[in-house]
Amino acid sequence: MTGPRLVSILRQGPYLIASIHTALDDSQMTAFQHDLVDRIGRDRARGVVIDVAALDVLDSFATRTLRTIGEVARLRGAVTVVVGIQPEVAFTMVALGMDTGSLHTALDLEEGLALLDRAVGPRRPVTALRGGAA
Amino acid sequence: MTGPRLVSILRQGPYLIASIHTALDDSQMTAFQHDLVDRIGRDRARGVVIDVAALDVLDSFATRTLRTIGEVARLRGAVTVVVGIQPEVAFTMVALGMDTGSLHTALDLEEGLALLDRAVGPRRPVTALRGGAA
Repeated sequence: MTGPRLVSILRQGPYLIASIHTALDDSQMTAFQHDLVDRIGRDRARGVVIDVAALDVLDSFATRTLRTIGEVARLRGAVTVVVGIQPEVAFTMVALGMDTGSLHTALDLEEGLALLDRAVGPRRPVTALRGGAA
Repeated sequence: MTGPRLVSILRQGPYLIASIHTALDDSQMTAFQHDLVDRIGRDRARGVVIDVAALDVLDSFATRTLRTIGEVARLRGAVTVVVGIQPEVAFTMVALGMDTGSLHTALDLEEGLALLDRAVGPRRPVTALRGGAA
């Protein structure tokens, strides 16, 4: 398991929220990928949000890993959304022609969860948690 | 920020409407691109309409910039539609083999907004959505 400093994976209802807190090297990225996919099965997750807001670079290995996670998660029945891609990071990814075609993306955690709600379908009423107004 | 004469970026609900009022040189086009991507984050926009009806030419740099905006916007969670491409402009773009592959396009602002409504899914009150019954 990657230490809590680098990455955290939290469960929220049917979703997993993975935050990458700092740039990961390739082996850490690979470990993260395996941890996350394990958790999908263990927690029976229907959706995964990967928050990369803390990163100011996403190199091609990291991008490919995120894409792999998205595809593997899909095969395990979960939808993946990457959120928090910073503007400069996005420009660089596009300039370098990184293929992000199959990745769902959203502005931030809130939008990512909303996207999952739409993609995964009506929530089991798991979520008094988020239920806005009292 | 590019002056109001050249470009305007207005917010309408969850969408941004950017109108290019006159031909932009490359540096103005680049500035426009960055302004617009910043606004996506600031306004939490889910969709962007870029109106190029005032332009009677779209050169390859401008076309590439529009494509970049579309891809960067997607990574930031927004769908981009280019509207108002004039017939002669469209003929020229096709004749020159400009690659517009990933760009959504629509006839005019109205059709562009309709396309966003379909692409982005049920409009906002996403939070009401989650907050169970009234």
